Amino acid sequence: MTEPSQGRPHVVIVGCGFGGLAATKALADVDVDITVIDRENHHTFQPLLYQVASAGLNPSDIAQPIRHIVRKQANVKVLLDEVVGVDLDGRKVTTNDDSIGYDYLVIATGATHSYFGNDGWAEFAPGLKSIDDALDIRRRILIAFERAESSTDPVERERLTTFVVVGAGPTGVELAGAVKEIATKALRDDFRRIDTTSSRVVLIEAGPRVLGAFTEKLSASAEQQLVKLGVEVQTSTPVTNIDADGVTTAAGTIPAATVLWAAGVAASPLGQSVTDRADRAGRVPVRPDLSVKADDHVVVIGDLAAVTSQDEVVPGVAPAATQGGQHVARCIDADLSKSERPIFVYKDKGSMATIGRSKAVAYLGPKLQFGGYFAWLVWWAVHIISLIDFRSKVSAMSSWGWQYLTGQRVARLITGRRDRASTLD
Amino acid sequence: MTEPSQGRPHVVIVGCGFGGLAATKALADVDVDITVIDRENHHTFQPLLYQVASAGLNPSDIAQPIRHIVRKQANVKVLLDEVVGVDLDGRKVTTNDDSIGYDYLVIATGATHSYFGNDGWAEFAPGLKSIDDALDIRRRILIAFERAESSTDPVERERLTTFVVVGAGPTGVELAGAVKEIATKALRDDFRRIDTTSSRVVLIEAGPRVLGAFTEKLSASAEQQLVKLGVEVQTSTPVTNIDADGVTTAAGTIPAATVLWAAGVAASPLGQSVTDRADRAGRVPVRPDLSVKADDHVVVIGDLAAVTSQDEVVPGVAPAATQGGQHVARCIDADLSKSERPIFVYKDKGSMATIGRSKAVAYLGPKLQFGGYFAWLVWWAVHIISLIDFRSKVSAMSSWGWQYLTGQRVARLITGRRDRASTLD
Repeated sequence: MTEPSQGRPHVVIVGCGFGGLAATKALADVDVDITVIDRENHHTFQPLLYQVASAGLNPSDIAQPIRHIVRKQANVKVLLDEVVGVDLDGRKVTTNDDSIGYDYLVIATGATHSYFGNDGWAEFAPGLKSIDDALDIRRRILIAFERAESSTDPVERERLTTFVVVGAGPTGVELAGAVKEIATKALRDDFRRIDTTSSRVVLIEAGPRVLGAFTEKLSASAEQQLVKLGVEVQTSTPVTNIDADGVTTAAGTIPAATVLWAAGVAASPLGQSVTDRADRAGRVPVRPDLSVKADDHVVVIGDLAAVTSQDEVVPGVAPAATQGGQHVARCIDADLSKSERPIFVYKDKGSMATIGRSKAVAYLGPKLQFGGYFAWLVWWAVHIISLIDFRSKVSAMSSWGWQYLTGQRVARLITGRRDRASTLD
Repeated sequence: MTEPSQGRPHVVIVGCGFGGLAATKALADVDVDITVIDRENHHTFQPLLYQVASAGLNPSDIAQPIRHIVRKQANVKVLLDEVVGVDLDGRKVTTNDDSIGYDYLVIATGATHSYFGNDGWAEFAPGLKSIDDALDIRRRILIAFERAESSTDPVERERLTTFVVVGAGPTGVELAGAVKEIATKALRDDFRRIDTTSSRVVLIEAGPRVLGAFTEKLSASAEQQLVKLGVEVQTSTPVTNIDADGVTTAAGTIPAATVLWAAGVAASPLGQSVTDRADRAGRVPVRPDLSVKADDHVVVIGDLAAVTSQDEVVPGVAPAATQGGQHVARCIDADLSKSERPIFVYKDKGSMATIGRSKAVAYLGPKLQFGGYFAWLVWWAVHIISLIDFRSKVSAMSSWGWQYLTGQRVARLITGRRDRASTLD
C-alpha cells in the first residue's frame, strides 16, 4: 500500500475531468499532498469531443496530458490507473495495481453512456465520452461514405449514407449538425459515384422537443435551425431497437449503417462504493458541502454527484463540475484552519449548444436567450477562449516550431485500448 | 467485375504513396480513366512518420485523404480497398470486394517491415510504416514512462525506461534521437518518482556503421551527434532475439520494455503476382521503362521495384518513387501518341537524416556533405516546404477557422484496424 510520504493530509482525487482538475488546481496553495488518479493520461475538453468525432479537430487540440498540466504544482502526483473500489473504513482506494490511503477522497469520475438496459445496442450505436469514442465515431462515419462509394446496390448505398443520432440533448444536436455539414460541405467534391449532399441525417428524440433542458423558445429555434440545415428531426419518438440494420421506432425501421448514441448517461459505477442510496441515474446524493452522508472526508463532484443548490438541481455540465472542484478546496482549507465548511452555491453562467456553422442557441438569462448567428458567435468566442486558456498553443504547425524551441511535445495522448498496448494493431 | 465506363484506356494504380500519387497527378492531362486503389483512405508523408510516433506531430499534419487530394482531377476515381491478386492474362486485379479490369496497371504498393524470418519478434518490436504503426509506437513509449512512474521496483523501472531501436538507417536514427529528446526534454518536468532524463536509448545496428547508405564521413558525424545527444550506439551488433524481456545480442540481453524495429523492409507481397524473379528483398525487376518483363502494360514503381538507372541501383527513397510515378505518365502518353517510350533516368537530389534538434546530416554531392546545425536547417527547410506543399493549411487551429470558412475538414483519417470498425473500441 502506498502511503503519503509526509505528515500532511493526503488528498486522493479520482478522475481528472473538469471537476477533478479544478479541485487539483484549487488545492495548489493548500498544505496537502495530492494524488490524481485517472485511467487516461489526458484531460479532455469534453464539450468539443463532437468536433473530433466529426473530424474538425485533432485529439490533441482538445486533450492534454494531465501530468503536463500540473507539472509546476509541487504538491501533486499523477497516476495512470483505474480506481475499482473504496474502503471507507480503512480510508483507502483500490486500483488495478495498488492500494492507496487517503485523508480526503474526491470522487470525480463522471458519467458514461447508458443504453437503458439494452446493452446489445452499444455495438451498433457508440456513444461519445472519450477521445477513443470520438476516433471510433470518426472512423465509422468516414468508412460509411467509402463503402457507399464502392457499393453498386442503391438500397445499400442509401443505408450507408443514412446517419441516425439518438438523443437530442446538446451532444446529439451538435453531432447531427456536424455530420450533416460533413456530408454537404467537406465531402461534397470528393466522391464520384455518390452524391454526399443527399445523405440523410435523422435526429431521434424520445421527449417532446430537442434540447429539452433549454427553454421552449430555444428548443423551437434549435429545431428550426436543424431543419434548415437538412437534418430530419423526430421528437416524441422512443427508439425500440437498434441493430445492424438500423434504428426501429413505432414508425418503423430506418435502415442506417451508422447510428450514434447521445440519449442517456449513467453515473460512474464507482459511486456505489460510497453510497447505497444512489438515485435512478446512479448519482450519489451529497450534503450541502458536497461530502457524502457516510463520511465527510469523502466528497463527490461533477456528473457523478446529485447536488442541489438553493433548492434547484445542479445540472451535469462542465461549469458545475469546475465549481464543485473549487468548492472542495475551500472545504479542505476550512478544515485545516478549523473553521466551518462553506456550503456549495452553484452559479449558473448560462448554456449554449451549436448546430452548425452560424447556427446555435444561447441562454444567458430569461431575457437574454437567442438563436442563430449571434448565438453562434457567442458560442464560438466562449469555446475558443476556453480552449486557448486550456492549451498554451494554437496549432500543430506552430506547435511544432514551439517544440523545437522549448523541447515540448503537443500530441502526447495515449489512445486506443489499454489492453492492446502490448500487441500490434 | 467493374469495367471502365468509356473507351479511353483504364489505368489502375495500386497504392497511393509517393509513387502512386505522382503517377496519378502526372496523368491528369493524359486521355485516360484512372482508378486509384489504396487500403488506407489517406496518403502519408512517410519521412515524417517518426514525428507522429514520437508525439511531435498529429497524424493529420502528415496525412491527407486521397480523394481530397485528387478531388479536382476529373479522370480519377478512388477506391478504399486492397488488391490481393493480379490476373496478367485477363488484365484485371482482384480486390477484397471486386474485380477490376485495366489497360495499364501501375503497382506502387511499396514495402513493409521484415523480421528476416523471425516473425515472432513483431509483437515486441513494432515497425513504422503507417499512421497506425506510428500511433501504436507513440502509445508504447508513453505508457512505458507511466508504468515506470507507478513501479516501485528499481529493476523494473530501469527496464521500463530503456528503449532499444534496432536498425540504424534514417528511420532508426531519427526514432532513437526523437525518443531521447522526449525523455530529456518533453517529459523532464512531468514525473515525480522517475527521472526521465536518465532513460537509456540504445541504437543497435548489425552493420559496421550508422546510416550505412550515406558516406563514411556522414556516418561518423551522425554517430558523434547521436552520442552527444546521449544515445548509446552499438554497431556490428546483430540481434539474435527479441522477446518480452528485451533484446539479445552476442553481448547479452538488454532488458527493455520498448523495442522499435527499423532494421529491415521486404517488398509488398503483391510483387509476386507479376514476377517469379523477385530479388532477395522481394522486389520486382523492371525494364528501363519500368515495365515488368512479362507485360509492358504493367509497371512497378517505388520501393517495390528493383530499378537500375545509368548502371546504378536506384535507392528506395521518396524522390525515386515520385520520379518513377512521373515516368509512368510519360510512357503511357508515349504509347497513346504511338511514339517510343523514354527510359527511366533517376536524378539523385541528395539525402538527409535528422538526429534531433539542431542535429542532422546532409549529402548534396561529394563536395557538399556536412553534419550539424546547418544540415538540420537544410533538413528542416526541405521538409517544411514539402509539407506545406503537401497540405494547404498549417495548423489545427487555423484549420478550424478554415473549416468554418470553407466547410472543409482537416482530420479525415481512418486509423485503427479496419476489422474493428464495426465494434466498440
